[in-house]
Formats: sequence, C-alpha cells, structure tokens
Amino acid sequence: MSDARIDALQYAHEHSDQFLDELQEFLKIPSISTDPAHQSDMIRAAEWLVSRLKSMDVQKAQLFSTQKHPIVYGEYLVAGSSAPTVLIYGHYDVQPPDPLDLWKTGPFEPVIKGNELYARGSSDMKGQIMAVLNAIEAVQSTDRFPVNIKFLFEGEEEIGSPNLPGFLDKNKDLLSSSVALNPDAGMISSETPTIVYALRGLDYFEIQVYGPDHDLHSGLFGGVIHNPAQVLCDLIAGMHDSHGRVTLPNFYDHVRPLQEEERRELSRLDIGEEFYIKQTGVGALWGEEGYSVVERVGARPTLEVNGMLSGFISEGQKTIIPSSAMAKISTRLVPDQSPSEVHQQLLKYMDLHSPKSVKWSVKLLSSGEAGITDRNQSATLALEKALETVWGVRPVFKRDGGSIPVVSDMQHYLGIDSVLTGFGLPDDNIHSPNEKLHLPTWKKGIDALINFFFNLA
Amino acid sequence: MSDARIDALQYAHEHSDQFLDELQEFLKIPSISTDPAHQSDMIRAAEWLVSRLKSMDVQKAQLFSTQKHPIVYGEYLVAGSSAPTVLIYGHYDVQPPDPLDLWKTGPFEPVIKGNELYARGSSDMKGQIMAVLNAIEAVQSTDRFPVNIKFLFEGEEEIGSPNLPGFLDKNKDLLSSSVALNPDAGMISSETPTIVYALRGLDYFEIQVYGPDHDLHSGLFGGVIHNPAQVLCDLIAGMHDSHGRVTLPNFYDHVRPLQEEERRELSRLDIGEEFYIKQTGVGALWGEEGYSVVERVGARPTLEVNGMLSGFISEGQKTIIPSSAMAKISTRLVPDQSPSEVHQQLLKYMDLHSPKSVKWSVKLLSSGEAGITDRNQSATLALEKALETVWGVRPVFKRDGGSIPVVSDMQHYLGIDSVLTGFGLPDDNIHSPNEKLHLPTWKKGIDALINFFFNLA
Repeated sequence: MSDARIDALQYAHEHSDQFLDELQEFLKIPSISTDPAHQSDMIRAAEWLVSRLKSMDVQKAQLFSTQKHPIVYGEYLVAGSSAPTVLIYGHYDVQPPDPLDLWKTGPFEPVIKGNELYARGSSDMKGQIMAVLNAIEAVQSTDRFPVNIKFLFEGEEEIGSPNLPGFLDKNKDLLSSSVALNPDAGMISSETPTIVYALRGLDYFEIQVYGPDHDLHSGLFGGVIHNPAQVLCDLIAGMHDSHGRVTLPNFYDHVRPLQEEERRELSRLDIGEEFYIKQTGVGALWGEEGYSVVERVGARPTLEVNGMLSGFISEGQKTIIPSSAMAKISTRLVPDQSPSEVHQQLLKYMDLHSPKSVKWSVKLLSSGEAGITDRNQSATLALEKALETVWGVRPVFKRDGGSIPVVSDMQHYLGIDSVLTGFGLPDDNIHSPNEKLHLPTWKKGIDALINFFFNLA
Repeated sequence: MSDARIDALQYAHEHSDQFLDELQEFLKIPSISTDPAHQSDMIRAAEWLVSRLKSMDVQKAQLFSTQKHPIVYGEYLVAGSSAPTVLIYGHYDVQPPDPLDLWKTGPFEPVIKGNELYARGSSDMKGQIMAVLNAIEAVQSTDRFPVNIKFLFEGEEEIGSPNLPGFLDKNKDLLSSSVALNPDAGMISSETPTIVYALRGLDYFEIQVYGPDHDLHSGLFGGVIHNPAQVLCDLIAGMHDSHGRVTLPNFYDHVRPLQEEERRELSRLDIGEEFYIKQTGVGALWGEEGYSVVERVGARPTLEVNGMLSGFISEGQKTIIPSSAMAKISTRLVPDQSPSEVHQQLLKYMDLHSPKSVKWSVKLLSSGEAGITDRNQSATLALEKALETVWGVRPVFKRDGGSIPVVSDMQHYLGIDSVLTGFGLPDDNIHSPNEKLHLPTWKKGIDALINFFFNLA
C-alpha cells in the first residue's frame, strides 16, 4: 500500500470525532424540501455545504439558484488533465419526519446510542455526503491527490428533482467529468459491501374507465349497465397471468435475459424470502415464477396498481353504479424494454380487452429508461477493489428495483456512467421514524472511499 | 263521480301554487342522513313534517327519537272503525349530493325550469311525501273523509333503515293498519302509471384487503409483494362469470323462477334496451344472459361495485404498493334469497379465493329481504283504478329493481301488505347530480291519490 494511502487512512481514523461532530452539525438543519415552512433551512443547509467545501480549498464553491431549492457546486481539480475527473453527486434535502410521535428522540437532534446515530437524514443521505467529504479531506492531507473532483449537491431529490435535468443540460461544460460517484445506494448488510449496477425504468399511467354518463341507482340499473369499476377490475385482473407474469402483448419480447453468470453473481446476495416478509409483515410473498426474489425485484419487469378510485368511498353506504373508475398503474422496466413501446402495449391491451359497454383513456404521467452499467468499467473495478480491501470480502453486485433518474439523466446530458454505492443499511428506517446510521459501517465506508480514489488513478 | 271527490280535485288544482311553495321549503333542508355534519338538519326536517301534520289537524303528531335520526308519527282517524286504515310511509332523508361540481344549481336551492323542479330529494322522496299530504289536505276540504290515516316518516332510508324494524316491533298497536301506502316507487314514463308489486332485497358490504403493514416503495418491493389492489381486482373480477352470472357459491339456489304468465305481464312494460341506453349514454348494455332487461333489473339478483379506494389517488404520481384496498359491494336480491345466506356466501367466496399473501375482512353494512305482494289485493285494485281514471290507461305492473326493506319489515312486524306507487320518472337523476321532479306528473299523482282514498272506502 502506498504511503499516501496509509497516511490518508490514518488521518481519517485520527479525525473520526471531528467528522462525527461535523455530521451532527449538518443533521441539525431540518432541510425538508417538500415543506415550504423550511425554505430558509434549505438555504442554510446549502450554505453550510458551501462553507464546508471552501474550508477544503474547493474552488468555485457556490450556490446555483433554481426555481425551488439551490444546487451546490464546487471543484477540486489538482490532479492534472491526464487524471480522471469524478463528479460526486448527493442531495442535502431530507424526507419529512412525520409521523413525529413515533420518533424516540427529536429527528433534528442527533443522538448517538451505541453504534447508531439517530437523526433524519443520517442515512439518507447527509451521512453519505459527509463520508465522501471526509474521505477527500483525508486524501488531501497526504502529499498527492490522485483524481480531480467536481461536486454536485441538489436539494430536491425527495421531491422528484424537478430542476436537476435542466441544470445538467445548461451546465454540460462545467460538469464535464469521467464518471459520477453516487453514494445514494446502500448495502444489503453491514458485512456485505454492495455495488448497484442496474436500476429499473418506469412508465406511470393513469387509466380511466367510463361507464354511464352519471352515477346510477344500483337497484334501478343493476343488471343492465356494465359497472365501470367491475370492468376496471376485470382489466387489472387480466394484466397478470396465473404465473405472475404481465400479460401486456409482447411485454417480455425485449427483456434482456439473465445469463447464468449474472444469476450466480446475484445469488451471492444474502437476501431471501424471510427478508421481505420481515420488512413488510405479509403472510406470503408473490411474484413471477421461475425467478428468485432478488431477480424478481431487480432484473424482471413488474406492473403495479399504485392507486384506485371509483364511486362512493366515504363512511356508510351509497347504492350506485359509478359513472367511472380510475387506476394509477406503473410498470418497472428492465433493459432492453422501451418505455414508449410498453405504453403502446398497454394501449393495445386496453383496446383488445375493453368491452363495448365502456369507454376508456390512458394517460402517460412519466416515463424513464432502465439503466445498467458495465460491471467491468474501470471505476466500478476501482470501487470493487476498495470495498474488498476494507471489508475483506468481495462486494456483491446488485440490480436495484427502484429508479434513480439522476443516473440516466447524467448518461443523457453529460454522457457519463455512475458508480453507485453507499453505506446505509436496510434497517436504517429511511423515509420512516427513527432514521439512523450504523457508525462502524459508515467509518469503514470512509476508508473504502479513500481506497477508491487511490484505485482510480 | 261523487261531489266530495270533485271538490277535492278542485281544491288540489286551486292550491297548486301553495303545494309547490311548501315542497320547495321542505327541499331546502339538507337532510343528508349519512353525514354526521347534517345531524341538526335531520331534526329540522323531522320537525318541519310534524308542524305540517299539525297544521292538518293530525293527532299525536310527534317525533320518536331513535339511536340515530327521529321517526315522525301522526294519525288522522276520523272515518270510523269500519273504514280501512292506511299507513302512509315515507322517508325525509336524502342521498348526499356529491359530486357537487356536477350540479347545475345548488342541490338544496330548489329551482323550477319549465316542467321540472330541480333539487336533491325532489323525486326521492320529499316530492312524493308532499303529494300524499297534499291529496289528504284536498280530501279534508270536502264534507267527508273516507278512510283513516296513520303517518310514519323515517329519516334513515338512505342509510339502510337501521332503527325502523325495532320501531315497528315496539309499536305494533300504535301502527296497526289495514294496508300501507308507500309512494317511494316510480313510474316508467310520464304516460304510463305504474304499480310496483315486487322489490329486490339488498346486502351491502365493505370489503378490505390488507397487504403489507405499510405502503411500500414499488421499485424496492415490486415483484415480491402481492399488491392488495391487484388482489381486490382479482376477487371482484371473479365475482361474475362470462355469462354475467354472479359466482358466489350457491347464489342462485333459492332464486324463485319467473312463471310464463308473469313474464307475459312484465313484457307489457314498454322498456327495451334503447330505454336504458338513452338513460345512461352507454355504448352497449350488459347483464345476465337469457333474460330481458326488465327481468334482469326486476326479477334477477345482481352484484355491484358501489365504490373502490386504494393507495394514491391525488394528482400526479406516487410509486407505492398500497398497504390495503377497499371496495363497497352490494347485492340486489330477489325472492326467495336470504340476505344472511348471501352474506355467508360472500364470506365463503373470499375464503376460497383469497391468496395467503393478503388478509381480508368483510363488513355487512346493511341488509334487507326482497318483497313481493299479491297483485289482486283490494288496495292494489283501488290504486289501479285511480291511476287509470287520471291517466286514461291501465297501469302496468312492475317488479322494481330497487330495495325498499320497509315493505318486508311491515309484512313481518305489522302483518300488512304495501301498495307501492310514486310519481318519479326514470330520468329524475335520483341518487345523482341534478335530481328533479316532473311537475305535470306530480300534479296528476296528487289527483290519483285523491281518487285512491275515495276508491278504498
């Protein structure tokens, strides 16, 4: 191991208390992006980051205002033009803390109990941002800095990043980099470092089924008028077959099959049926036959009902045949499904299966491509090696079931791939009361990031 | 025609404006029984009726309180013990006006446009109650009153009359009568006076399907967690077969078959497919194979989705697997189906078809037997003649698709049959926005009721 690397790790270990103090300071700012009452806290959090970057000699550290919450930018380009440039992505906004009464300690009063640091944002993702900044500070303390760094921290991730794509589009030169590091993914357990290499895409639809032109008395019309809520149920029920497969015509035609090698790699993930049962409290799991739970969530497409509304839903009873019925339905897509083709498939399904007794409409609310990165790109290999060095085990590779639009946005606008990691754990209660960060894992994460920067060079 | 009868008809025609003013006063009270916010309006409507009865010299006019909304009682027993006693039934509560934005004028701001009076309750059934009171007032203005009258107006019909059966049971002597007149039925067209001799029964259920213990991220869990909205759709879709028949186990076992004579009488009703298409604006009808539209609505049982709710239903999108899904479902029953047996059949259906991945519950919100009366009883003949006198055509006999549980409750507790009529029309939009009353038909109805009381004696 190079002297610089050893020096950096030693610096990190010696400054552990300082790092923790700083993180807690950051966590005290209630930067809740969705709540207009916290507008000034959002500015405070962004400015806190700017001054933290300035204290590290980061150049051009500044806020870019957007239509809502500012974006923080900065650059540290000391490695020369032949060294790679890493764009560090993060978001300084947090989820609202509600329901407040379920928190054991204040969401914005960080408390350490044993190995855990409790606070909103500790895991998602102020802790992850600070891990990267701490690793960089540690590398700065040595006699050489191996890569160039750019920083991009947004304040709108928890509200769907409405202003980020526009910012990427307008600032292509400023943000130009070799690769992005996105520490907003997590680990599957404290013993198992994890690299996410694929994310699912999405089509989000609103379906309306229209029956009679007004709500009808179910006694006077029941028996002759086709109930649109019943028709919607028929249509939704028909969207899966008895093997848990989606029945939209040609839905699976372009799904990239899992190769044996990849299935073997995914099977190393220690996530079984019990994990999902424990997380959700259900009596039994469900899904597409022939695939493991990890494959079903990460590598297979799904179709979900996200919401449904028809007729009378208040207390008590109203005996009507509703005039219409609505469902919000989304598909999670995998490579190489095309979101626009899946949209056409749904339209065709509706056309084929809707009876003449109703009319219908389908509105596409949003759409995003699935993403998959080459597990053998150099930045991923650098991260794999770094994680293995610190944990002593080879990281697992995971296909994540969710969609992180910034990953495909960066591909689209900046032409760069992202390396996804992070040191949060599945039981960190992100988006829930009592969010926490597992400190031993977080500290190992700082060490791993130090190694990552050296491995990249 | 007797002088008294002619005098009464003349009185009614001369007081037409007064009758209409009174009806509009009554319609202004938003007596929505299902909405706790209208508790005081319910009392107001009941007290309005009591004072209207008192103004007609009705004795014992008073409220009887129940666990929810009061019952109005009164009696006018001047015809002597040898004359028949008619128990007038009505309900002063109305359906909720939702969706409010579809009303062209305020639901509780009665407006007359041409021949129509628009207001919630105008047709169902404040207008019908007032038609009877007006007819009685007209007969009172003459030198003889041919029958004895008792009045029974409830405030809970639109919520399933939870307290009426108990009241009938406890007040058998007070309510003892020869026959009941129930004007809560309607006419099939303004030219065709109609006598309803059968009604469907009802079971009203709320079904809940429970999935995970909290809403889940559809990306992280889509593929392994059974979506409760999808399960609910599967269950509802399975409740009908491809012939439009209900699939609850043993559902048709006790359905009384239609005899040829009755099918011939029902076929006199000039109600065809076009009628229902015109009323509702649908592209095609639907229903059980092998039966005419009139038979399907009146003499065959049905199952309807009245409402459905799950997950995210606001503007925009939220990518969740909802933790639960709800449907309000009701069955319309015919002789000799038992509502409690049908309840058991639904429980059995849920038990047979629900997957282990979810939990479920079924709540029975209300329940009522189907009813059928003898078409040749004397009160029915008196009504048949009265309607023919005013309209000039023989009335048609109809099995009504709706449910009026009070008919079988009166048979059960008081031992009396009901004569069912009413002057609402199929396009009155009862239970819908822009409910209305066709005033020429309503005025003829008052004339017919005057004739009915004289025919009875």
